[in-house]
Amino acid sequence: MRAAVMRNRSLVVADVPRPEPGAGEVLVRTLACGICGSDLHALKHADRFVEASRRAGSVFTMDLSRDVVMGHEFCAEVVDHGPDTTKRVAVGTRVCSRPTLIRRDGPRTVGYSNDTPGGYAEYMRLTEALLLPVPNGLPTEQAALTEPMAVGLHAVAKARLEPDDAPLVIGCGPVGLAVIAALRLRGAEPIVAADYSPMRRALAERMGAHVVVDPARERAIDAWQNAAGARPAVFFECVGVPGLIDRIMREAPRETRVVVAGVCMEDDRIRPMVGINKELSVQFVLGYTPMEFAETLGDIAEGRIPVAPLVTGRVGVDGVADAFAALARPDEHAKILVEPWR
Amino acid sequence: MRAAVMRNRSLVVADVPRPEPGAGEVLVRTLACGICGSDLHALKHADRFVEASRRAGSVFTMDLSRDVVMGHEFCAEVVDHGPDTTKRVAVGTRVCSRPTLIRRDGPRTVGYSNDTPGGYAEYMRLTEALLLPVPNGLPTEQAALTEPMAVGLHAVAKARLEPDDAPLVIGCGPVGLAVIAALRLRGAEPIVAADYSPMRRALAERMGAHVVVDPARERAIDAWQNAAGARPAVFFECVGVPGLIDRIMREAPRETRVVVAGVCMEDDRIRPMVGINKELSVQFVLGYTPMEFAETLGDIAEGRIPVAPLVTGRVGVDGVADAFAALARPDEHAKILVEPWR
Repeated sequence: MRAAVMRNRSLVVADVPRPEPGAGEVLVRTLACGICGSDLHALKHADRFVEASRRAGSVFTMDLSRDVVMGHEFCAEVVDHGPDTTKRVAVGTRVCSRPTLIRRDGPRTVGYSNDTPGGYAEYMRLTEALLLPVPNGLPTEQAALTEPMAVGLHAVAKARLEPDDAPLVIGCGPVGLAVIAALRLRGAEPIVAADYSPMRRALAERMGAHVVVDPARERAIDAWQNAAGARPAVFFECVGVPGLIDRIMREAPRETRVVVAGVCMEDDRIRPMVGINKELSVQFVLGYTPMEFAETLGDIAEGRIPVAPLVTGRVGVDGVADAFAALARPDEHAKILVEPWR
Repeated sequence: MRAAVMRNRSLVVADVPRPEPGAGEVLVRTLACGICGSDLHALKHADRFVEASRRAGSVFTMDLSRDVVMGHEFCAEVVDHGPDTTKRVAVGTRVCSRPTLIRRDGPRTVGYSNDTPGGYAEYMRLTEALLLPVPNGLPTEQAALTEPMAVGLHAVAKARLEPDDAPLVIGCGPVGLAVIAALRLRGAEPIVAADYSPMRRALAERMGAHVVVDPARERAIDAWQNAAGARPAVFFECVGVPGLIDRIMREAPRETRVVVAGVCMEDDRIRPMVGINKELSVQFVLGYTPMEFAETLGDIAEGRIPVAPLVTGRVGVDGVADAFAALARPDEHAKILVEPWR
């Protein structure tokens, strides 16, 4: 099957073996798969990504000397049932799934493993028990946004918001936009969001931000203070570059809770004394729970998360490398979908 | 009056003006004042201490070109009442107080300011409204430990312990010992505590640790895992040296809540990816609330915090410089009290 393959730390189009569904697994045809910032990180900082994951006891353990087919934000169509399946989801059904393959000897991450290709290929195998049929009528490309939107839902859940908390979202890439959507869903107000990109600021408004700020013109913290006054601060770091946690810690008011949803692969520097003097807390977050994933698909299907504006591009497998390059420029795109059948 | 004075970044014995109590203030005679690790930090890293405090909008804003009399862990005796006082606390009464002077133009920190001498001098002025009479019969030197013990109570309160949480206390200096006492008071079990010093490990046991570990022989995390199994981890960092937060983040299990009570004045390095992969949280803490301070004095007076073993030395003002040096060697002392009347 055709796929965009990470090989020797770059992306190439190649023919790779179509996966065989094992016991309890189904074969699916990828209909659409979003390109995630983590995939950009994984390509750019491949060794660090694998090393950090291994150290954390994570399942993202790829052998970089072998092919990897990335892609973990997908909507797909059931093509065939493997052995020991219940067939409760009929062939032809559109499905979403967490990007996890449940195996007897432990889970595999769909899209970050050598033997479990992700959505940048024509076919995937998925665990039958994890399949969530797409509710009738929800467009495929909106269903494919379940995974990144669930990340926002989870980050907001981990923030344990109190009714009076006033959020600031720093960075309005896909993660920041998902956080804004989740905050809006929970009724947080005012939601203040900051990004240098006019396009991303416009999307932040469409996702539900009440105040958007261009940090080139006004400090995000000043805009937040104007809107929130003395209310408890919950700041979402949705950028993931070195130095930003330190800067947020320096600018944040006393007792701010910082939620780190941006993925910074590099080492970073902080000043503990600043955190101590202000009694800050820093909550690192990743992923989502199975329940949060399912809830998010329902929220999208019911129109409670307006994801349609987020899709700004569509490519086939031969367009993935260029799409990665385009996504590194923040003012061109929010989410690009790979459609391997193109 | 005689005092141990921080002058030109070192400690000297000098005669300094006796403070005049202002409106709503009392003059007190210092009976005993503990030497705090923060005072060692403030002397060693004076400029950084002031700079970090200023940046955090803290009240610890000293002019280092002028004298500072430190000392903020005290028990004292009321000597005279200033103007506009209620005199509800009679002359001769032994009192504790948070080290704060309430003034119309804002608070002053007793012991970290140029004009509000702390307990390393014969006399202090204190705000009458903050005075807590020492409950009858409690020895002065135990009452003087209210302040450092309150720090432990506060750190544990900020950890928001759930019934199943299993704590690990890293470092058994005065902060770590106070955390152990507060954990014991809350019924946490097992309390695992680690320190390289045999004397501190022995004190950790007396304060209520169920398991003590020498990190030179066994990793603290291994001892914790043996004792706690798969229970949720709450790790208290009570050392305050660069690199320790990073190391704790690397070794901690998933979803560990790290409470940083050790004061690290230097810049520090972390790997955000490690925190992200394991969804760690880091809560920086400082000080205590007024209620926590008062509660702690009551807990000590009722025998619920066994502070007596913590006092390992007593000096006059002429012994303060040597005591600072001795406290930098972890196996000689826990808490040294300054008794300026000696």
